Amino acid sequence: MEDRRLRIGVAGLGRAFSLMLPTFLRDPRVQLVAACDPREEARRQFAADFDARTYADVLQLADDPNVEVVYVASPHQFHAQHTEIAAAKGKHVLVEKPMALDAADCERMIAACRAANVHLIVGHCHSFDTPYLRARELIREGDFGAVKMIQAVNYTDYLYRPRRPEELMTAEGGGAVFSQAAHQVDIVRLLAGSRAVRLRASVGRWDPARPTEGAYSALIWFENGAYASLSYNGYGHFNSDEWTGWIGEMGDQTSPDAYGNARRRLATLASSNDEAKLKAAGTYGGSAYKPPCASADEPPRFHQHFGPVIVSCERADLRPLPDSIVVYGDRRETLPLSRPAVPRAEVIDELYGAVVEGRPPLHDGEWAKGTLEICLAILKSSEAGADVLL
Amino acid sequence: MEDRRLRIGVAGLGRAFSLMLPTFLRDPRVQLVAACDPREEARRQFAADFDARTYADVLQLADDPNVEVVYVASPHQFHAQHTEIAAAKGKHVLVEKPMALDAADCERMIAACRAANVHLIVGHCHSFDTPYLRARELIREGDFGAVKMIQAVNYTDYLYRPRRPEELMTAEGGGAVFSQAAHQVDIVRLLAGSRAVRLRASVGRWDPARPTEGAYSALIWFENGAYASLSYNGYGHFNSDEWTGWIGEMGDQTSPDAYGNARRRLATLASSNDEAKLKAAGTYGGSAYKPPCASADEPPRFHQHFGPVIVSCERADLRPLPDSIVVYGDRRETLPLSRPAVPRAEVIDELYGAVVEGRPPLHDGEWAKGTLEICLAILKSSEAGADVLL
Repeated sequence: MEDRRLRIGVAGLGRAFSLMLPTFLRDPRVQLVAACDPREEARRQFAADFDARTYADVLQLADDPNVEVVYVASPHQFHAQHTEIAAAKGKHVLVEKPMALDAADCERMIAACRAANVHLIVGHCHSFDTPYLRARELIREGDFGAVKMIQAVNYTDYLYRPRRPEELMTAEGGGAVFSQAAHQVDIVRLLAGSRAVRLRASVGRWDPARPTEGAYSALIWFENGAYASLSYNGYGHFNSDEWTGWIGEMGDQTSPDAYGNARRRLATLASSNDEAKLKAAGTYGGSAYKPPCASADEPPRFHQHFGPVIVSCERADLRPLPDSIVVYGDRRETLPLSRPAVPRAEVIDELYGAVVEGRPPLHDGEWAKGTLEICLAILKSSEAGADVLL
Repeated sequence: MEDRRLRIGVAGLGRAFSLMLPTFLRDPRVQLVAACDPREEARRQFAADFDARTYADVLQLADDPNVEVVYVASPHQFHAQHTEIAAAKGKHVLVEKPMALDAADCERMIAACRAANVHLIVGHCHSFDTPYLRARELIREGDFGAVKMIQAVNYTDYLYRPRRPEELMTAEGGGAVFSQAAHQVDIVRLLAGSRAVRLRASVGRWDPARPTEGAYSALIWFENGAYASLSYNGYGHFNSDEWTGWIGEMGDQTSPDAYGNARRRLATLASSNDEAKLKAAGTYGGSAYKPPCASADEPPRFHQHFGPVIVSCERADLRPLPDSIVVYGDRRETLPLSRPAVPRAEVIDELYGAVVEGRPPLHDGEWAKGTLEICLAILKSSEAGADVLL
């Protein structure tokens, strides 16, 4: 392993970047060397924080000879274009989920990276979380037999977090299917260990003030005979953190007493413009932005996760949890997971592994295109009232 | 309300009767006056316990002039015939779930009871449980808006409890769909408050030693626009009692330390014959039968239930639990349920209400036929790989 740091240029200093920043700050395998964002205050903060170059435009970022990897964290609808720009300049690409908004865009991205001979990795996505990766390894070791059934459930307040207007428009890549199924479907595919072949789904869209998908349920069938039942509800009522020991999506301890906070905060805002401003204020460079603690003294306590998941194999159920994997076989056994040193280090594992060490990434463009196709099929099946063949 | 006791004759002193016996013993509105069963030891015990008449044949039971209501608790495949026999003799019928094994049998049963002008009530079924009935009332009061999505999940050791051979044969009414979906589907229909119009499902059948359905998942769409996602897994690994405060199906406190007991006990048996004997020994009149405590000093601590259920309405999620209903609206509120005085008193509420007080029962033949049709559609959809219109 070469003892060197990957030089990352960030395209888009919004929410996705804020969530990855603790990783970039703590993981010694990467350093932030440049960024672009249309918001001047975000550029100013980045330049001050990292003594790094900033640009208003992604073309300039891709031209920066010091950048090895472009982290595409711009809004969903720009992922394809920004990936093509980076690849054309010979940069490796780490692109946020969802990879893109349609399969044609995914193919363009894959082709662009292939033509430029650069790596394309899609993430962060919760299928990078150690509990799922470790459960996958345990299943592949074969002691529990074939996967037969997967149950994944997640109840959150997703729909009531502050949003930009396009995040509430499905046609622009908004809503729970593009944004949240992208996690859940990816996890389920990874655990099923087989190609998804058909799907039936129903979406829920029942708050006229947030006119996009807030919920969905889906059945997915896999080539190896396994099937999965997925349900997501982001309407901010029941919170399934209750079923993961009150450990939240980010691996932090959450509290039942925070019930309803997202909805109450939103109710204080007069317009969608105020809401977008609130979101911007809370993201990197904004007036209400709280920087993550870079100190290595405070690593996250638990792994990140995306709600309760139960994988039923022929001879055991596996339950990946933020601190352990519970194996329900002839006996019940809890396999503890070591506390993460760096949050989302698994993303850097794949990125560094691919670029520096030549290990093929799991979450490459073809993989992520498969997940997007399933997300699109969820919308299509619900609309058509029938199975979608994949 | 007339101050009188309904005189019940029991057709079949097996497991279903054992589970209803605490109700018959404790509820002052009913008394057991006769029974029939092919097992002599069961008849002997019944005669001794209740100073009541016993018969080897259901025809004789139906002829007993002292019997007002025949409780049909014979194996599934006899429900239709025994109901017709009872109705022909002018007896009201309380028939165990599943009502029958096909829709034609349900229709014969409904027609026979209608022709005889007697009531037909199908139960016990867990949709009689107070938490679900109370949640239904709350929904019908309208404060939470329309039902939009229902999630029902149940993980048990159903498949590894001692069984007679036919209980492991789907064609004879065995397996999780006939036996367990009958509960879950009924609960979901009751909460949806609307006619089910289409369904897509997948069944799991992965232990060759127990060659029937051990698991299923289904999506059900309702006329009012609600949809439900149901999953059941009876393979004895994960136990969803963990998500209902370790209160079991029967309203009793269960223990995580009992993990794997059903499977281990089964492993000690040499043959399916031994297994059937074990089951018989543990049921009424058998050598290992433990009578319920009739003392009113020891009522059940909690209500019965059938696994975690979350009903999402437009403005709140409702979670019926064994001791309360949690309403997740703008605020979270726990509505305590009073401790049940008599287990399954809700069955007698409907039976007594219909026969003595003239109140139409909720769980009548037409209702239960609807549930059976959905159970059959689960099998059909999984087999055909497509939606089934209901």
